[in-house]
Amino acid sequence: MAEQRSPYDLPDASGLSVAVLGGTGDQGRGLALRLAMAGNRVVIGSRSAERAQTAAAELGADIPVSGAGNAEAARGCDVVIVAVPWEGHGELLRSLAGDLAGKLVVDCVNPLGFDKKGPYALQVEEGSAAQQAEALLPDSRVVAAFHHVSAVLMLDPAVERVELDVLVLGDDRDATDTVRALAARIPGVRGIYGGRLRNAHQVEALTANIIAVNRRYKAHAGVRVTDV
Amino acid sequence: MAEQRSPYDLPDASGLSVAVLGGTGDQGRGLALRLAMAGNRVVIGSRSAERAQTAAAELGADIPVSGAGNAEAARGCDVVIVAVPWEGHGELLRSLAGDLAGKLVVDCVNPLGFDKKGPYALQVEEGSAAQQAEALLPDSRVVAAFHHVSAVLMLDPAVERVELDVLVLGDDRDATDTVRALAARIPGVRGIYGGRLRNAHQVEALTANIIAVNRRYKAHAGVRVTDV
Repeated sequence: MAEQRSPYDLPDASGLSVAVLGGTGDQGRGLALRLAMAGNRVVIGSRSAERAQTAAAELGADIPVSGAGNAEAARGCDVVIVAVPWEGHGELLRSLAGDLAGKLVVDCVNPLGFDKKGPYALQVEEGSAAQQAEALLPDSRVVAAFHHVSAVLMLDPAVERVELDVLVLGDDRDATDTVRALAARIPGVRGIYGGRLRNAHQVEALTANIIAVNRRYKAHAGVRVTDV
Repeated sequence: MAEQRSPYDLPDASGLSVAVLGGTGDQGRGLALRLAMAGNRVVIGSRSAERAQTAAAELGADIPVSGAGNAEAARGCDVVIVAVPWEGHGELLRSLAGDLAGKLVVDCVNPLGFDKKGPYALQVEEGSAAQQAEALLPDSRVVAAFHHVSAVLMLDPAVERVELDVLVLGDDRDATDTVRALAARIPGVRGIYGGRLRNAHQVEALTANIIAVNRRYKAHAGVRVTDV
């Protein structure tokens, strides 16, 4: 048996610095806020360094969050969360492949379409946004995570605990364990291993169902994995 | 506003009779057992009426469960759960289209493949097993549900409450509400609306991730929807 590690053991993620590309959007700002509140050094990345700095300043002066251009943010951090809109996903990652070499890249992008019947999952040539990242970033370790985390809850100062699980997918055990530990830095959140990267499509696509739940129940739904 | 119903309201499902096609498999027997324990009349369907009757008898003499051929089971019940292996799904439904006319058909089939790396989602021409059912059964109302319910837990007599949510998908509000109510007959289970049928693929495919969770954590995982 090569693997004797307990799936419940987590490495120490308290010292990890985290860039959030596309960090001026709701999802990115929410993750940046919660990770910085947990004490991790966070750099919001954006095409415009100035907008990134403004977004960081608006999150609060008393937490370790700053802003920079996407490339600078990526180069300066251990972990890089990709939270850009699906439309610009491939182009951005292609342009940053050198800056992301050697990094742990966490893709949380959900390729969704919307029409009058609501949200639906888009087909992705590579199978999923995460697999597209893997194809474009051969020198990075790519993990998929944080797909179902409500930006509304993360950005609400009245919400002390974000009560949901983050499914973490990838083929590198150290990488998925690190991201699980990073997710667990947010009070209320557990990082649960959710399978190999080839099974990322349905986790990304499930966001369409969660949006349908939110509309029907007027909720900010997430997922908990039971019996774990 | 056409819809003023609370999403938390449920119709009375106590009087519904339920056929379970493919009811001699683990998933089918588990659902049959739990629904019969809840007091619903259940008919296990199988290609072999004799095997169906044997399976029903083995579930217990003190609950309202019997066995029959698939067609007879379908014709005699209000709700028909399709729990057959994916391989025989299309062929069976095509052959039973007449028997299923007018019925509420609940598809819980997960089109999965397995290789040395574990489970993965199969591509389905119609989009999902549930959409295939909808295409083959124009005179039935088709709902997708019960994908992530652990057969092990359902068949374990020591498990009094099955603590998970059943995502219920479909385009007909009355139909999804009825299936939500049916799911909620099982102690511990909630039936949560999970979107339109066109978003069924990822719910079916997510079973691959749940199997990955089960293997990693040695668990019988399910899903709870948070904030609902």
